[in-house]
Amino acid sequence: MTEVAITSATNPRVKAAVRLRARRERETTGLTVVDGAREIGRALDTGIEIVDAFVGDGVARSADAEDVVRRLRTASRSFAVVSEAVIAKVAFGDRTDGIVAVVRFATRALDDLVLPPDPLVVVAESVEKPGNLGAILRSADGAGADAVIAADPLTDLFNPNAIRASLGTIFRVPLASASGAATLDWLEARAIVPIATRLDAPTLYSDVDLRGPVAIVVGSEADGLTGVWTAPRVIPVRIPMLGAADSLNVSVAAAVLLYEAVRQRE
Amino acid sequence: MTEVAITSATNPRVKAAVRLRARRERETTGLTVVDGAREIGRALDTGIEIVDAFVGDGVARSADAEDVVRRLRTASRSFAVVSEAVIAKVAFGDRTDGIVAVVRFATRALDDLVLPPDPLVVVAESVEKPGNLGAILRSADGAGADAVIAADPLTDLFNPNAIRASLGTIFRVPLASASGAATLDWLEARAIVPIATRLDAPTLYSDVDLRGPVAIVVGSEADGLTGVWTAPRVIPVRIPMLGAADSLNVSVAAAVLLYEAVRQRE
Repeated sequence: MTEVAITSATNPRVKAAVRLRARRERETTGLTVVDGAREIGRALDTGIEIVDAFVGDGVARSADAEDVVRRLRTASRSFAVVSEAVIAKVAFGDRTDGIVAVVRFATRALDDLVLPPDPLVVVAESVEKPGNLGAILRSADGAGADAVIAADPLTDLFNPNAIRASLGTIFRVPLASASGAATLDWLEARAIVPIATRLDAPTLYSDVDLRGPVAIVVGSEADGLTGVWTAPRVIPVRIPMLGAADSLNVSVAAAVLLYEAVRQRE
Repeated sequence: MTEVAITSATNPRVKAAVRLRARRERETTGLTVVDGAREIGRALDTGIEIVDAFVGDGVARSADAEDVVRRLRTASRSFAVVSEAVIAKVAFGDRTDGIVAVVRFATRALDDLVLPPDPLVVVAESVEKPGNLGAILRSADGAGADAVIAADPLTDLFNPNAIRASLGTIFRVPLASASGAATLDWLEARAIVPIATRLDAPTLYSDVDLRGPVAIVVGSEADGLTGVWTAPRVIPVRIPMLGAADSLNVSVAAAVLLYEAVRQRE
């Protein structure tokens, strides 16, 4: 670990971190930026590679945040104490503890996922908004899901907004990406039953047995699920919509089914 | 209804609509801006007063959106066909059908709420992010809740981000605002049992009978519920948290309890 002080917003390391706000740069480098003590703490917990760290000088922090700073000093390949102007430049959101880390993310393939018996899996098809992917991960973490699969995602998985909406659980919940067709085949090979939310399904989600190996499948905000998920081995279920709107937010729909599975399993 | 064409972004009506992005201006005037065909359609459905309407010239729209434009021509006190530059200026988000309306919102007091027997109510305490309030309203609409009460809100209720996150259901779900203490008294007077989500509650939410008159009470993201909701008549319940994070998003927590109530009531 090398530790330096940075006061210039045009420092090459600062500029490199700022460039990671662009998806293309994240995909080229395999790196992303993580903002906030809680999120960085969760990344540290998983032993992910920390490439760089920026800690704002003179920022008032909680004891938990100071602990994250201490851990970063040891874990990060580079560590910089930076001026207020620099931390404002590299920090991603408005909510900040004055700590930003650059990490190397790992995108898993389906076969990298290791599942227990009777796994509880979430498949999010064509998710477009990183905030929704992050919210799904946060709910999946809460419900103790064993994996989240982004099928044909329209966002990059380690988008900083996904990291933030997940509260950093994105580093903890096993997360893979694949095509919808490959995901369906993979589920079938493991005898995991896809339970797909559809507006027109005759069966209520709460009338289906969710105690066995199941994958809860939710579609995109705009278009719902594609034809892949009309295969005969897929069980369509309906969430009651009793008001004016015809759908729930995709992360809310996933959470309602996940917690019904938790309830049934208890 | 007066119909005009506007091509200048400095037109006083355009400037008045843009000013409504500021909370202070919304609170002073009792007006807010609504962006998008679906959201404006829901406002029209409830017979809310439409003060002004801006429709972008030459914007390609769906049949549903064109129907909203037709209804606005009749319902809005003023109606303007505007240039692309003007609609870009008054539109609130990036997602736009090229239709923006200025509406007069009604903030209800508790005693304005009319409830059926065995009502299902949501109380959101100290909600700070308008997007979370909107998400709670969308889930409350889906679950057929009878009212949402914002107790000591830290956001204005008809913030454009709340309207958008609610998909316009904010105009349909009865929504009132009051202090936490007044809300608790009001619930007691109507024999509605507050069910409050707490991390340390001994009882699981799914082990409580939610078929009677109940209010699901969720606290702020940052601090949870205040001491108001530790009164003896409040039933604390816990949502299982099986992962690394210690809480769900507030709108997700509300949805999990709301849909458990729907399941029990079916």
